[in-house]
Amino acid sequence: MDDRARCWLALSLVFRGPSAAARRVLGLFPAVDDIFRRQAADFEGLRLAREAVEAIVTGRALDRAGRELEKIGRKAYTLLTLDDPGYPGYLREIFDPPFVLYCEGDVEALRNPAVAVVGARRPTPYGRAVAEKLAGDLAGRGCVVASGLAAGIDACAHRGALSKGRTVAVLGSGLDVPYPWENRGLHREIAGRGAVVTEFPLGTPPLAENFPVRNRIISGLAIALVVVEAARKSGSLITAKLALSQDREVMAVPGNVTSELSEGPNGLIRDGARPVASWEDVAEALPSPWRENILARGEAIEENSGASLSRDERRLLGELPVDAALPIDELAERTGLSVSSLLALLLGLELKGDVVQHPGKEFQRRM
Amino acid sequence: MDDRARCWLALSLVFRGPSAAARRVLGLFPAVDDIFRRQAADFEGLRLAREAVEAIVTGRALDRAGRELEKIGRKAYTLLTLDDPGYPGYLREIFDPPFVLYCEGDVEALRNPAVAVVGARRPTPYGRAVAEKLAGDLAGRGCVVASGLAAGIDACAHRGALSKGRTVAVLGSGLDVPYPWENRGLHREIAGRGAVVTEFPLGTPPLAENFPVRNRIISGLAIALVVVEAARKSGSLITAKLALSQDREVMAVPGNVTSELSEGPNGLIRDGARPVASWEDVAEALPSPWRENILARGEAIEENSGASLSRDERRLLGELPVDAALPIDELAERTGLSVSSLLALLLGLELKGDVVQHPGKEFQRRM
Repeated sequence: MDDRARCWLALSLVFRGPSAAARRVLGLFPAVDDIFRRQAADFEGLRLAREAVEAIVTGRALDRAGRELEKIGRKAYTLLTLDDPGYPGYLREIFDPPFVLYCEGDVEALRNPAVAVVGARRPTPYGRAVAEKLAGDLAGRGCVVASGLAAGIDACAHRGALSKGRTVAVLGSGLDVPYPWENRGLHREIAGRGAVVTEFPLGTPPLAENFPVRNRIISGLAIALVVVEAARKSGSLITAKLALSQDREVMAVPGNVTSELSEGPNGLIRDGARPVASWEDVAEALPSPWRENILARGEAIEENSGASLSRDERRLLGELPVDAALPIDELAERTGLSVSSLLALLLGLELKGDVVQHPGKEFQRRM
Repeated sequence: MDDRARCWLALSLVFRGPSAAARRVLGLFPAVDDIFRRQAADFEGLRLAREAVEAIVTGRALDRAGRELEKIGRKAYTLLTLDDPGYPGYLREIFDPPFVLYCEGDVEALRNPAVAVVGARRPTPYGRAVAEKLAGDLAGRGCVVASGLAAGIDACAHRGALSKGRTVAVLGSGLDVPYPWENRGLHREIAGRGAVVTEFPLGTPPLAENFPVRNRIISGLAIALVVVEAARKSGSLITAKLALSQDREVMAVPGNVTSELSEGPNGLIRDGARPVASWEDVAEALPSPWRENILARGEAIEENSGASLSRDERRLLGELPVDAALPIDELAERTGLSVSSLLALLLGLELKGDVVQHPGKEFQRRM
C-alpha cells in the first residue's frame, strides 16, 4: 500500500468522508500527500475544526490510517483511492466522490458503470419477482447490477444478478459489520462473484444517517437507476433524487395504483422518470455504447436460452393446462400450496413467459 | 324540426358523416340549405361521387332526411346539428365534427366538456374497480363522464358515474340498435339520467369500421381522456391518439408490468401521458376553470361522505380484524367466497380506503 493511499484514507477518516471542509483543504493543496506535510498555520482561513487540524499536523491521522490499512490487508480487502486508475470512473464524476472505497471481492466488477436496482425493504411478491427478473436479465447481458444489500428489493436484485452475472453491493456500514443480519450469506456470495463496497471505516455500525450517504454511491456507480417498489417517502426516492442530481437516467417500474408501494415509482414516472417493464426497456434508454452492447448480448443469449425452473415451478406447470385456464382456488386445491405462495410462483412463471394470467385470477400454461 | 336540420342530416346521410368530400362542398357553399338549391353543374370540380350529386340535386337526400327526422321524432330522440347552440362546443372544435348528433336522453349532459374514461373490453378486476371508482368520484364532483358503452372498462365507467352523477355514452351504431346486447339495460339507465349519442343513422349495425369513427367523438366531447386498461394494440390506444391530435389531455392509470392489459396505459405514460391514480390527479391536470370547479366540489362532498357498502362488502369487513392482517386463504375459508371474488371485493374496499393490503396477500381493516 503506497503512501498516497494512506494519505487519502487519513483525509477521509479525519473529515468522515468528502465533507465541504475536506474539499476546501483539497482545493488549497491538491496533492493529497502535501496536506500531511503542512503546519497548523497553513490551514488558517479554511474554517476547519481544531481537532481535524491537530490530527493532521501531529501525524495522528496518518497513524490511524496506517492501522486501518493493516486491518484492511489482514482481511484481504482492497482500498481504492480517488486517484487510483481502478477507481470507478462514473463515481469519480459526481459532486462528492468518496476519497476511498473499501472493496471486498473483485474490483473488476467496478470497472464499467452499473445499472442500479433499488426499492422497498418490504416489497410485494410482484416487486420481488420483477426486481429479480430484471436484475437477472441485465446481469446475463453483461450489465453489473448495483444495489444496497438491504432486505427486500435490494436483496432480490442482488440474487437475480448473481444467478446470471455480476453484482455490486454498497453498504452503509463497515465491510466487517454484517447488516442486515439475514443478508450475511448474500454478502458472502456477492463478495465471491462481484464486489461489496463502502466508504465507511471498518467497524462502522449501520447508523441511519449513513444510508443517504451510501445511496449517492449506489447512483454514482450507475449509468441508470431503476426503482422497483417504494413508498411515498422512502430511501429509494432519495436515491432517485441523488441520481437525478448526478445526471443519471432514472427509471421506475410502474405498478397498480391500489398498492401503496406503487406510489413511489408511479410518482417518479409522473415527474419524468421513464417507465420500464423489462431489460429491453432499460437498455433502450441507455446512452451509447451501453445500449448497443447490451442489446447485442441480448440477442446472443436469447438464441440458446434454456428453461431454468425450480422444482415447485415445474410441479405447478405440470398442473396447468395449455388449452384452458384454471382458477387460482382450483390450483390451490390441486397442488396443496397456499394461494399466496401460488401467486408468487405464478408471477415468476408469468415473467418467464411460461404462464399467462386471465381476468379473475385464472391461469393457463403457454404453448 | 326546421329545414336547416333536415339539410345537415341530408348532408350527413349522403356523405356518411363529415367526409373530405362533404367538407369540400361546405367549403364552397357554407350555408348548408344553399347546397340543396344547387344544380349538378355547381358541384363540378369538387370530385364528388355521381350518386352523391344526384341524391342532392334530385331531392332524394332531403326526402330520406325527412323520413329519418320523422323516425327520430317518433322515438323522442333529439337531433343536434353542427350550428345548433346546444351542440357541444368542445366537439365542434375538432377537425371533423359530426354534422349531426342523434341524442337519447338529456342534451344538457352535453353542455360541458366531459372526462372520457375508456379501456379494455375484458379487463381485470383491478381495472374494473379503478374505472368504476374514478368515474364515480369524478361524476360526484360535477364532471360528466364520457365513454363508449362497450363491455368492460366502458361499462364500469358508465356504472360508476351513474352511481354519483351523469354520464354520456357514444355509440358505434344507430341509437335504436342495442349493442353490445348485455349493456342494453345500462343504455336505458344512461338515457334516463344522462345521454346516449351517435352520429350514425337509425338502424346502423355496429360495424367494426364505425368504432374508430365513434372514438373521435368520445375524445372530442372530452377535455381529458383517461385510459384504464388496454392491450398493446387496441381501440383505446386509437382513442388516445385521436385525443392527442385533438389537443386533449391524455392520462392513463399505470398497472403492474406483469399484466398484458397494463401495456397500453404504461406505454402511453412512457410516451408522455400523465399517470393518474385518483380523481384528484385527474382534476390537477385539467385547465382552469375545470380544475378549480372540481376541486371545490370535491371538498364539499368529502365533508359529508357516508360509507356506501354492498352487503358482501359489509360481511367481509366484519370478518377482517383491525389489529392484524389475515391471509387471503383464511378469508376464503371464513367467508366461503372464492379467492377471485374475494380479491375483487377487497380491491373495491382498498379503493374506498376501508382495507389495507400487506405483502403476501394479507388484508387488514383500517381503523
